[in-house]
Amino acid sequence: MAPFDLPEGDPFGPHNLPYGVFSLPGSEQRTVGVRLGDHVLDAGGAARALGSPHAALLTRPTLNPLLAAGRTTWSQVRSSLTEWVTDPSHHETLAPLLHPLSSVTLHLPFEVADYVDFYASEHHARNAGAIFRPDATDTLLPNWKHLPIGYHGRAGTVVVSGTDVVRPSGQRKAPTDPAPVFGPSTRLDIEAEVGFVVGVPSQQGRPVPLADFRDHVFGLCLLNDWSARDIQAWEYVPLGPFLAKSFATSVSAWVTPLEALDAARVSPPERTHPLLPYLDDTSTDPAGYDLRISVALNGHVISEPPFSTMYWTAAQQLAHMTVNGASLRTGDLYGSGTVSGPAEHQRGSLLELTWNGRDPLELPDGKRTYLEDGDVVTLSAWAPGPDGLRVGLGEVSGRVLAG
Amino acid sequence: MAPFDLPEGDPFGPHNLPYGVFSLPGSEQRTVGVRLGDHVLDAGGAARALGSPHAALLTRPTLNPLLAAGRTTWSQVRSSLTEWVTDPSHHETLAPLLHPLSSVTLHLPFEVADYVDFYASEHHARNAGAIFRPDATDTLLPNWKHLPIGYHGRAGTVVVSGTDVVRPSGQRKAPTDPAPVFGPSTRLDIEAEVGFVVGVPSQQGRPVPLADFRDHVFGLCLLNDWSARDIQAWEYVPLGPFLAKSFATSVSAWVTPLEALDAARVSPPERTHPLLPYLDDTSTDPAGYDLRISVALNGHVISEPPFSTMYWTAAQQLAHMTVNGASLRTGDLYGSGTVSGPAEHQRGSLLELTWNGRDPLELPDGKRTYLEDGDVVTLSAWAPGPDGLRVGLGEVSGRVLAG
Repeated sequence: MAPFDLPEGDPFGPHNLPYGVFSLPGSEQRTVGVRLGDHVLDAGGAARALGSPHAALLTRPTLNPLLAAGRTTWSQVRSSLTEWVTDPSHHETLAPLLHPLSSVTLHLPFEVADYVDFYASEHHARNAGAIFRPDATDTLLPNWKHLPIGYHGRAGTVVVSGTDVVRPSGQRKAPTDPAPVFGPSTRLDIEAEVGFVVGVPSQQGRPVPLADFRDHVFGLCLLNDWSARDIQAWEYVPLGPFLAKSFATSVSAWVTPLEALDAARVSPPERTHPLLPYLDDTSTDPAGYDLRISVALNGHVISEPPFSTMYWTAAQQLAHMTVNGASLRTGDLYGSGTVSGPAEHQRGSLLELTWNGRDPLELPDGKRTYLEDGDVVTLSAWAPGPDGLRVGLGEVSGRVLAG
Repeated sequence: MAPFDLPEGDPFGPHNLPYGVFSLPGSEQRTVGVRLGDHVLDAGGAARALGSPHAALLTRPTLNPLLAAGRTTWSQVRSSLTEWVTDPSHHETLAPLLHPLSSVTLHLPFEVADYVDFYASEHHARNAGAIFRPDATDTLLPNWKHLPIGYHGRAGTVVVSGTDVVRPSGQRKAPTDPAPVFGPSTRLDIEAEVGFVVGVPSQQGRPVPLADFRDHVFGLCLLNDWSARDIQAWEYVPLGPFLAKSFATSVSAWVTPLEALDAARVSPPERTHPLLPYLDDTSTDPAGYDLRISVALNGHVISEPPFSTMYWTAAQQLAHMTVNGASLRTGDLYGSGTVSGPAEHQRGSLLELTWNGRDPLELPDGKRTYLEDGDVVTLSAWAPGPDGLRVGLGEVSGRVLAG
């Protein structure tokens, strides 16, 4: 099939156009690409061929220069790309610049500056509370409804979809063990998340208000926050998760610009507690996103978490993250936190899906509590787009190797 | 005084030679410098003038290329610099490349990749435990003696000595408050720490053993981990400190190579608990450092924390940080955690020095519990060097601005 003749309703049609970084076989040269169906368009090549002023921005080994260019440029580039791929008069020019996805290598699309991970699903937080604090009177901690809880993760171990993940080793200690033992994690888990990618930096000492969210955040990707629950349980008091999370975080190879997701904007769940002014979004435009995530283990769908149920929005997370004056850099990445909906089949971690191993999943290839060596986890998602179309998000996939 | 005729016993003599990055007045050009007394030697200029093969490495706007070059190159460069500044035959050549410190601008000496902060002083951990958990049977948490507790901080807000720090705003909630309130922190604190700077990267999935510490870590600096105790108290459960720390972390402008500190190596305190093999340093060379830190508030010394009392060494911290397969990058920075000794005047935070505000410090300019706007905090330090000399560490200083 000719690359421009996509099947009707293809979730990666010209209404989508996510950005990535690719290289051709036998070449070390990385450059910006845009996904169209099951092809990638060499965006810099297209810009040069068609005389665009943005060619230099798109002929780079990472998206960072485009991210840094700001919202006006983001719109101009997207508008040009949309015109190029939809106007048949350009197709002869562009045809040699379209490569089948199966023929290219996809790379980490941007250099990660700081990585922050949030904890924004009320259902996930309540499930975790019920599992780990079964005797507590409230499954939510007292601060949870007042601020989006978050922490910094390791930017240097963010990897692109398709990268194998080595099972981490570390210390664990069951309450009944006399001393900690060392070895490969026996409770390796996933967390299905959405990652937000910062484009425009901010100045140290200057908070970014809720209303400026779209001036700073370029787009989003799917994110799997691999987690070793046994390591986490022993190490996390009092300074939070460290080695339980820092061995790998996988992101999709495609960053979907927020502009492609306008039709997916929804109001977040009703706020049950009054919010301080810097977090109060009751009079702002809807800042939630209706993303329908699917979690597959070895090809079998085990969960379908709805992102629309997240209590805290990405705009609130950005406002919170900077309210103390912390600055943003181009390439900052922040994860939403595990996406879990209210229903059992909407839980975004094996911790919740198996209730910490008590209720194994029955899969065609056997029972699962936590991940086994060789397991492949794939997150995919789509969002409502214009004219009844779906906007596909790039999948994030990873295989567990023995540690 | 001629720059090469240092006073006898100058702590920044030719036995020291810490590295930094400077620019001359009116110039945007940053380049590598080496401190000699109260002057900076243009290291790249010297290398070019004297025909060194390392000139390119030293003519860069950050130390990162030198950091990445590895231990053999680190030794060669240091050895050349030592020869140049001690051999009078080179002094005429070098004289124009020496600039008074007062005439140059010092910059953040390296690009920070990931920033991790540890919690390695037993005295600090016990003081914090006694203050925050007065009813606990043990002031130490159960995991503390088994692993070096750490967490990731914000790399993008690491600033060089001399940078003003804006008092952060955030949420706080006293147990008696019905709801959180928002405003500038009322308990802004310091943490006197030592920062370790990683040069040589490691591969994801491959732990770095204790014995390889000096193949990866280039040197150290002083570090002030500014902390908002009121923000921290409300936000930190269950994922650790976030906004309480992320607004600013100050480091000295000079990175002291580990090679300059050989005479300061000491054994860490006796281990009271058996250690897992990857942390067991009982049969390794001494990995502690005898650094004598001084904390001054508005010019008055308020504490003298001894780094030699730290329970966990930097080598153990590196082994722990990577034991799960997390990779290292050039420019990774990790803080030791607050350095507190056993005596009251050896505590490295106002939290401990004032016992959370209960016992104000009496200073010539008034009482202090936590920091006030306009306060200037300066950490300085020295270590025993060869032949009875002292090795000075670059100071880290910062002034608090109203938020």
